[in-house]
Amino acid sequence: MKIAVDAMGGDYAPKVIIEGAITAAREYGCQIALVGIKERIEEELRKIPDLPNTIEIIHASEVIQMDEPAALSIRKRRDSSIVRSIELLKQGKAEAFFSAGNTGAVVCAATLGLGMLSEVERPGIAIIMPTVKENPTLIIDVGANIDAKPMHLLQYAAMAQAYYCHIFNYDLPSVGLLNIGEEEAKGTDFVKETYHLLEESHLNFQGNVEGKDIFKGKTEVVICDGFIGNVTLKVSEGVAEAFGALLKRELTSSLMAKIGSLFVYNALKRFKKSFDYSEYGGAPLLGVNGIVIIGHGRSNAKAIKNAIKVAIKEVENNVNQKMLESVKKLTYSV
Amino acid sequence: MKIAVDAMGGDYAPKVIIEGAITAAREYGCQIALVGIKERIEEELRKIPDLPNTIEIIHASEVIQMDEPAALSIRKRRDSSIVRSIELLKQGKAEAFFSAGNTGAVVCAATLGLGMLSEVERPGIAIIMPTVKENPTLIIDVGANIDAKPMHLLQYAAMAQAYYCHIFNYDLPSVGLLNIGEEEAKGTDFVKETYHLLEESHLNFQGNVEGKDIFKGKTEVVICDGFIGNVTLKVSEGVAEAFGALLKRELTSSLMAKIGSLFVYNALKRFKKSFDYSEYGGAPLLGVNGIVIIGHGRSNAKAIKNAIKVAIKEVENNVNQKMLESVKKLTYSV
Repeated sequence: MKIAVDAMGGDYAPKVIIEGAITAAREYGCQIALVGIKERIEEELRKIPDLPNTIEIIHASEVIQMDEPAALSIRKRRDSSIVRSIELLKQGKAEAFFSAGNTGAVVCAATLGLGMLSEVERPGIAIIMPTVKENPTLIIDVGANIDAKPMHLLQYAAMAQAYYCHIFNYDLPSVGLLNIGEEEAKGTDFVKETYHLLEESHLNFQGNVEGKDIFKGKTEVVICDGFIGNVTLKVSEGVAEAFGALLKRELTSSLMAKIGSLFVYNALKRFKKSFDYSEYGGAPLLGVNGIVIIGHGRSNAKAIKNAIKVAIKEVENNVNQKMLESVKKLTYSV
Repeated sequence: MKIAVDAMGGDYAPKVIIEGAITAAREYGCQIALVGIKERIEEELRKIPDLPNTIEIIHASEVIQMDEPAALSIRKRRDSSIVRSIELLKQGKAEAFFSAGNTGAVVCAATLGLGMLSEVERPGIAIIMPTVKENPTLIIDVGANIDAKPMHLLQYAAMAQAYYCHIFNYDLPSVGLLNIGEEEAKGTDFVKETYHLLEESHLNFQGNVEGKDIFKGKTEVVICDGFIGNVTLKVSEGVAEAFGALLKRELTSSLMAKIGSLFVYNALKRFKKSFDYSEYGGAPLLGVNGIVIIGHGRSNAKAIKNAIKVAIKEVENNVNQKMLESVKKLTYSV
């Protein structure tokens, strides 16, 4: 199995991307196509001893910057690592694609280059969130589609339920709709219409959930439009960061606290791990006709390795076919 | 100065509400009208030694439950603590009102009973959020108005900037618009239109902010519609709760960690305080023609005391007049 990796995308590219990809090649025995500027990739590879022979370089001369407008950048930069990687997928030369680069550009390039799964109207980015339970929560959409229609959310639910089932080996994941209260009558007209569609569907819909329920793991899957989902994601990151910074400040504020910190070091380390996005690595882009995983711009090598692991699992479990079947069972009239 | 307090609202009413109100009467020398079922209030008051003589009871025979539909409940329960309290304000028999009861009912009763500040179209609930900086962030709206128009958000901004200035003694608070990216072109049409209105206004508008910026204190005021704001609030609560639960779990997981926790006890306590909503007490309802503070359903006595402190400050600083002047300076054509 070959995974195309955008060597140029992300805040620490290409170094950290390449490190993560090579660790994945070693641990999972997959082939890796590092896509990007050949000279820069070679320079990094030279520093790595005992390079596995499952690594190849696909040259792409251009780099799409993190803040470039998505649609324009993929039209202008045909020889960018993102556009070239999507072509590899389309030509069947790679089974999956990982990028920690410009999210909008990846979504655009994947949507235009690969097309959608049959009947699916819009792609959605799903994020795996930690919970106080054993299982994480999968939220979709966190920003691919900010002008969503209720039907798009219904399709996200169908895809996400199938995805969760086959990636986390979980029998019948439940689906919740992100709203401002649990009662059916709550929320905007958009949310109420979505509620109705979900209720009528074959899915394991459990009604509305609130923002705080995400981290309680009330339902395995949470559905929302891309604007709300993106705000949710960034608010979560913001609270976790502020929490971490304030905790650190207090724990280094006195000699007593510093000594105590040594005792609780392992506990704090485990605690930190439970909120560490790099454990899951990346966010799958669901709905496109191919396997695409989007990484955080600040992805470290571990996150990249884990994202590739998820990509492999998606391919092995034929997740796109499972999602497609779930969407086809929806009985709405198009 | 007299503050009307909804003795029947909140998860721990009337006991905890009355405790908080009496502490406020003692500390700030204000008069308190406890509004609710007379017998139940008297029962609680009998337990309190040295009752200040600034406490009076206003009987209201009905209680609006936390989950009752807002509009219906205030029409049906004319003799409820919420409706009666608003009447006290309207008649000039109290200067401000605090309730930890049904938020929707308070918003409805206040809007219908007091009317709006001249030119203001919709009320908004503002929440004070802790940041890693010294000053908190004020977010509006967190749920009063879920079908907002861009002009409502502009008015929120005008009110919130004035509010922040006079409540936190802060010279020129800056205003940010909650969006999914910093660039002007980001977001839905709704957000883009709001951006344009804010940019053209006299306000100290600093552009878009993202969810994570709230806790960094990037701008003093953050504007959003009530649906997004409510999700933001609940996601923040959820992450903080999950964080706290996981931290506790780890810190009690081994003898070593338990011993260490004793050393870091004070640090953890200060840390907890920085995320403690009860430090600020309540959320002002901005835009209505009167001073109304809404408390969290789980408000403890300290939160109630602090909410009353904020109410007093709003009255003393004539904040509604200042907000009105700020709104009147807006040059949009109605």
